[in-house]
Amino acid sequence: MKDFPEITNKLLAAKKEKGITFADLEKAVGRDEVWIASVIYRQASADKEEAQKILSALGLESDLLTEQLTEPPLKGSLDSSIPTDPLIYRFYEIMQVYGMPVKSVVHEKFGDGIMSAIDFTFDVEKVEDPKGDRVRMIMEGKFLPYKKW
Amino acid sequence: MKDFPEITNKLLAAKKEKGITFADLEKAVGRDEVWIASVIYRQASADKEEAQKILSALGLESDLLTEQLTEPPLKGSLDSSIPTDPLIYRFYEIMQVYGMPVKSVVHEKFGDGIMSAIDFTFDVEKVEDPKGDRVRMIMEGKFLPYKKW
Amino acid sequence: MKDFPEITNKLLAAKKEKGITFADLEKAVGRDEVWIASVIYRQASADKEEAQKILSALGLESDLLTEQLTEPPLKGSLDSSIPTDPLIYRFYEIMQVYGMPVKSVVHEKFGDGIMSAIDFTFDVEKVEDPKGDRVRMIMEGKFLPYKKW
Amino acid sequence: MKDFPEITNKLLAAKKEKGITFADLEKAVGRDEVWIASVIYRQASADKEEAQKILSALGLESDLLTEQLTEPPLKGSLDSSIPTDPLIYRFYEIMQVYGMPVKSVVHEKFGDGIMSAIDFTFDVEKVEDPKGDRVRMIMEGKFLPYKKW
Amino acid sequence: MKDFPEITNKLLAAKKEKGITFADLEKAVGRDEVWIASVIYRQASADKEEAQKILSALGLESDLLTEQLTEPPLKGSLDSSIPTDPLIYRFYEIMQVYGMPVKSVVHEKFGDGIMSAIDFTFDVEKVEDPKGDRVRMIMEGKFLPYKKW
Amino acid sequence: MKDFPEITNKLLAAKKEKGITFADLEKAVGRDEVWIASVIYRQASADKEEAQKILSALGLESDLLTEQLTEPPLKGSLDSSIPTDPLIYRFYEIMQVYGMPVKSVVHEKFGDGIMSAIDFTFDVEKVEDPKGDRVRMIMEGKFLPYKKW
Amino acid sequence: MKDFPEITNKLLAAKKEKGITFADLEKAVGRDEVWIASVIYRQASADKEEAQKILSALGLESDLLTEQLTEPPLKGSLDSSIPTDPLIYRFYEIMQVYGMPVKSVVHEKFGDGIMSAIDFTFDVEKVEDPKGDRVRMIMEGKFLPYKKW
Amino acid sequence: MKDFPEITNKLLAAKKEKGITFADLEKAVGRDEVWIASVIYRQASADKEEAQKILSALGLESDLLTEQLTEPPLKGSLDSSIPTDPLIYRFYEIMQVYGMPVKSVVHEKFGDGIMSAIDFTFDVEKVEDPKGDRVRMIMEGKFLPYKKW
Amino acid sequence: MKDFPEITNKLLAAKKEKGITFADLEKAVGRDEVWIASVIYRQASADKEEAQKILSALGLESDLLTEQLTEPPLKGSLDSSIPTDPLIYRFYEIMQVYGMPVKSVVHEKFGDGIMSAIDFTFDVEKVEDPKGDRVRMIMEGKFLPYKKW
Amino acid sequence: MKDFPEITNKLLAAKKEKGITFADLEKAVGRDEVWIASVIYRQASADKEEAQKILSALGLESDLLTEQLTEPPLKGSLDSSIPTDPLIYRFYEIMQVYGMPVKSVVHEKFGDGIMSAIDFTFDVEKVEDPKGDRVRMIMEGKFLPYKKW
Repeated sequence: MKDFPEITNKLLAAKKEKGITFADLEKAVGRDEVWIASVIYRQASADKEEAQKILSALGLESDLLTEQLTEPPLKGSLDSSIPTDPLIYRFYEIMQVYGMPVKSVVHEKFGDGIMSAIDFTFDVEKVEDPKGDRVRMIMEGKFLPYKKW
Repeated sequence: MKDFPEITNKLLAAKKEKGITFADLEKAVGRDEVWIASVIYRQASADKEEAQKILSALGLESDLLTEQLTEPPLKGSLDSSIPTDPLIYRFYEIMQVYGMPVKSVVHEKFGDGIMSAIDFTFDVEKVEDPKGDRVRMIMEGKFLPYKKW
Repeated sequence: MKDFPEITNKLLAAKKEKGITFADLEKAVGRDEVWIASVIYRQASADKEEAQKILSALGLESDLLTEQLTEPPLKGSLDSSIPTDPLIYRFYEIMQVYGMPVKSVVHEKFGDGIMSAIDFTFDVEKVEDPKGDRVRMIMEGKFLPYKKW
Repeated sequence: MKDFPEITNKLLAAKKEKGITFADLEKAVGRDEVWIASVIYRQASADKEEAQKILSALGLESDLLTEQLTEPPLKGSLDSSIPTDPLIYRFYEIMQVYGMPVKSVVHEKFGDGIMSAIDFTFDVEKVEDPKGDRVRMIMEGKFLPYKKW
Repeated sequence: MKDFPEITNKLLAAKKEKGITFADLEKAVGRDEVWIASVIYRQASADKEEAQKILSALGLESDLLTEQLTEPPLKGSLDSSIPTDPLIYRFYEIMQVYGMPVKSVVHEKFGDGIMSAIDFTFDVEKVEDPKGDRVRMIMEGKFLPYKKW
Repeated sequence: MKDFPEITNKLLAAKKEKGITFADLEKAVGRDEVWIASVIYRQASADKEEAQKILSALGLESDLLTEQLTEPPLKGSLDSSIPTDPLIYRFYEIMQVYGMPVKSVVHEKFGDGIMSAIDFTFDVEKVEDPKGDRVRMIMEGKFLPYKKW
Repeated sequence: MKDFPEITNKLLAAKKEKGITFADLEKAVGRDEVWIASVIYRQASADKEEAQKILSALGLESDLLTEQLTEPPLKGSLDSSIPTDPLIYRFYEIMQVYGMPVKSVVHEKFGDGIMSAIDFTFDVEKVEDPKGDRVRMIMEGKFLPYKKW
Repeated sequence: MKDFPEITNKLLAAKKEKGITFADLEKAVGRDEVWIASVIYRQASADKEEAQKILSALGLESDLLTEQLTEPPLKGSLDSSIPTDPLIYRFYEIMQVYGMPVKSVVHEKFGDGIMSAIDFTFDVEKVEDPKGDRVRMIMEGKFLPYKKW
Repeated sequence: MKDFPEITNKLLAAKKEKGITFADLEKAVGRDEVWIASVIYRQASADKEEAQKILSALGLESDLLTEQLTEPPLKGSLDSSIPTDPLIYRFYEIMQVYGMPVKSVVHEKFGDGIMSAIDFTFDVEKVEDPKGDRVRMIMEGKFLPYKKW
Repeated sequence: MKDFPEITNKLLAAKKEKGITFADLEKAVGRDEVWIASVIYRQASADKEEAQKILSALGLESDLLTEQLTEPPLKGSLDSSIPTDPLIYRFYEIMQVYGMPVKSVVHEKFGDGIMSAIDFTFDVEKVEDPKGDRVRMIMEGKFLPYKKW
């Protein structure tokens, strides 16, 4: 399995041992579970209070760990440039298949620019369906128009 | 600029010349604009009736074109393995940064499996916001649990 | 040799020392040997009972190991993007040579869509033949038609 | 769309225009439809008689085309090293996920060696299923044990 | 030499033939010369009036060309993922050598986030120096703090 | 997280523990903070005096460390050829989007040659702005005209 | 230097210490020296008796090592996809330069098919020559004609 | 199919039309058929007399073609860095599997150096065998010891 | 064969037809033959007078061609990132094998910095030797010390 | 920093500690400093006497180390296929920019063949120059004409 930072492994182990879900952490911290998972995988940085709440929920209060969770991380958590894990690969496939159509629709709706991946939120919801539950992923980012100068 | 199939260029040119938007096509065809854009970029295949509606809205009725839009295409519309266009690249960035956190949350919510990218829909919405409009992208796919045998 | 997860090495070593074959495990667990091998290589996740049966057959009963075998793994077990091991490479070659012809035949038989690699089974059989035994690999997956929206 | 050899495009166009399926060609030629599709995509070479039967079924009898279909082709029909088309990519995913488990099972059943991709057949079948039809792909190749010298 | 869009070649040829510099265009259009060059290379989109001013300065007034310059382009103008042209490669080298140090300094000054490459300007100045003139490149982008949710 | 040389980790840890900023080091050493960060990341080499000042500011005086900071390093601090960290990736994006336009402007202003990345300085400034602070990066390098021979 | 499996390093160290050549092993085992070297580099698997002879010649008799040498290995011993070692690279160069010509000659002599790399032997001989000794490498593999089905 | 130089296509077409084999050319030119195939694929350069003999045997005498066959070509005839054609790929596989063992044997027999791929010959022979004919490929190159200076 | 710019093909054809060598051009232009070859391959730019001398020596005087030879080109003349042509590959091999040793020696002799590839000359000489002539390549570039700031 | 073999690190550390330069080693061993650096980086192999002289100059006499320096190494000392260190990258740039021109000049002077990188020497000299010292690198290799057969 892939090498995650030591702190990630430590938090995930505590989370597993205590039987705490990301949804539990969402309630304890007051932030979305995807964002909290991102902090744990060291793809996002918490502020001091948020870090303490995460650690406290996991029974891992520590100044050192708090500090580590507040540091801006080096982002990008995948080993190879094209991911092999089927769940993650599907994002890559979506980009390959729907990238150009979505680009056209966005430009038509908004003009030349992009959806920010920084001023951005990502929610994951379960949509119950008798024919098989569905995963709904809602990505929302500020539209950034290209500046002219 | 990239080489799209001839039919894509023809349809986009007609669409531009006539000043028809994807939203107009959505009304004319009764399908979502992202899906229609995918048909035009030859990433999805329409049935005969849908193809005729698209072509008719663009003033391009033709048996040959109808046939071309109904054929299952060779999918994957990007030149290079990692896209350079900033709008499309952001999906790649999202996968790199949020791939692992989302994977964890999905497994916790659903078990081992994936979100289908085939039994799948993709909507793009404009969320008006005084601090700057936001792009909302809603991806929804059937959860496919890994089969055991 | 490649780095597999520690648990994989532990199980394979026990399997070897005890002289247990995958076919033996198939009988003990009531699941196909390829699927069991996938669990051992941490490419598939077992449920608790299945994990216990595998571990018990190998004389390795343990709560910790049971838990590890039930976790959804990060999948994709090969080091380099194009495998160098000749047995595994042949799949890559088959995809390169027969990919397009098979795509055409599947689309003709089923329409636009794919064979699922998730709702999917993979069997390996030995076909005895006086001119040299043959390997038969039977892959079967649900046909997933592209959804329109 | 990808560039296939001119003869491939010509044969596929004729096939489409005449409404002939690969299954029809299978009957006309007395060879499996996947193999025939491979000849058409110039991934396999026919003998003179087979080539004539294929061309005749498509209404394209010609000495030149016959000759072209009998020539050993330069094989490997995909543009990029990792395919982006979702149907074809699934083979790549199967190799990434099940490559090592299958390797272990084959070695246990047969010893050190490989499944030939040359002395090899590939069948595609439709398995009707009320919960959704299934694609069955049967690959069978001679087991080639490593020679010692 | 590399393939640029037809309109790029046409505009550069006219610019050369007329002996017009980017600095001249800067005066004619009232926009920075780097931005104008980006429009000409189809990496940025002008509005109608800007497009007309550029075309008029080059003696190429045309509705078709105006329209082409106002379309959001598919961006990323380099052939290979790592550029071979020495002038352009130096940016890559700067990123490789100074990327991490700059990341640290930015995070220290601004917190976790990035410099936008969309709400962004890029100026090129000549700094005269008796020991050899110097190229000054000033990149300025809005700081985008990572959003939490 | 990425593997930096041991000395980098040691200096960053001391810097963090003491709460010293790069701006503090700038004052202590009399060199720009970006350059000092480059020395710490082992992308640049200090002379003995500069090394001692850096180490002394961090409370890490040592002959061994001094020596290590004065050695010309093997440069290039990023793991993968195309960086995944969003802040660093933006340089790559800027090169992809603005590389050709900037090349044209530089050649027009200076003739055939390049901006040196060796006889080169890199400053990072914070530009306060009520609509959101801006990051200004000023790169300046000697213009090197191609020599003829 | 590259990472070989532990057993490879152990055997090569013993071979070196004892001053035993591959030619000596050839005599002791009754197999070609290239094949024996392949077993030692864990690219080929020996049977029990052969493994014991190799180990015994090296003074390393051991059941564990015997077992390790009889296991089908994960093959492909090079780090990077295109080798940098000049001796090994020459094979790559030969394939690049002579690949197509040899393909044509083989097809003309044998029809459509390949030279097996499994039912295959590889001999290395020294050809003494006053103008400089020559390396002769004789590769011989069964011709495998493509099967039709 | 791959793009070969125009002269290659012209010569191969003539060869096919006249039903001339490489073995025929070997007799006509007095050079080995693999070398002649290399000249035709523009991987090797002939002298004037050899070029004329090849062209004359194919009924294509021409000063222009003679000149083209005598020019040192840009070598390397394969599209992708790792070949997909199964016959040519086997060389790559042989290098991956037997590269290190052969390197060890060569160094033991000859010292540090390489087998030249320039002062080099490559023969292809058919070895008849009742169990299936075999392809023998004999590569012979001058041993080049590393020079010290 | 590779695609060079049209002007390169035109000049090389004229050079061949007239039987003019690079050494002849060296005399006619008063510049080194390697530099002149670089201009012809559009890797370097001449001034007007030099361009006219080159064109005049080749009997191709033309204002258009003169202009084309004076333009700063997009540099980097090789198709693939690692060259396959054996003569050009040897530079790559030299960099792989001798890169680190040379780096150490240069740093020891000059301090931290590089040899410029811009303020740079490249000479090729033939060294006659009874044991086989030798190619001498003399690269000389200004040492550029890293600037501190 | 990159991982070099243990012996390389040991020798470089001793060299540094004793303040011995490559030039000192050149005198002690009677071989060129670049070659000696290549032995230390394990890119070249010394004979026993040379190894002893190098080790003795560094105060590291040892039979084990002597043996290690005499072994033909696995060559190619760089991590990534395209080097990121600016000094080493310049060789890559030179190959990209001047590769084709030099190829043309060499073929014109010598015929079809290559400069050997094995029967090869590489010297680095400092050329003092009031406008800035220059690095001169002299590469000389035997011309190897392509053999015909």
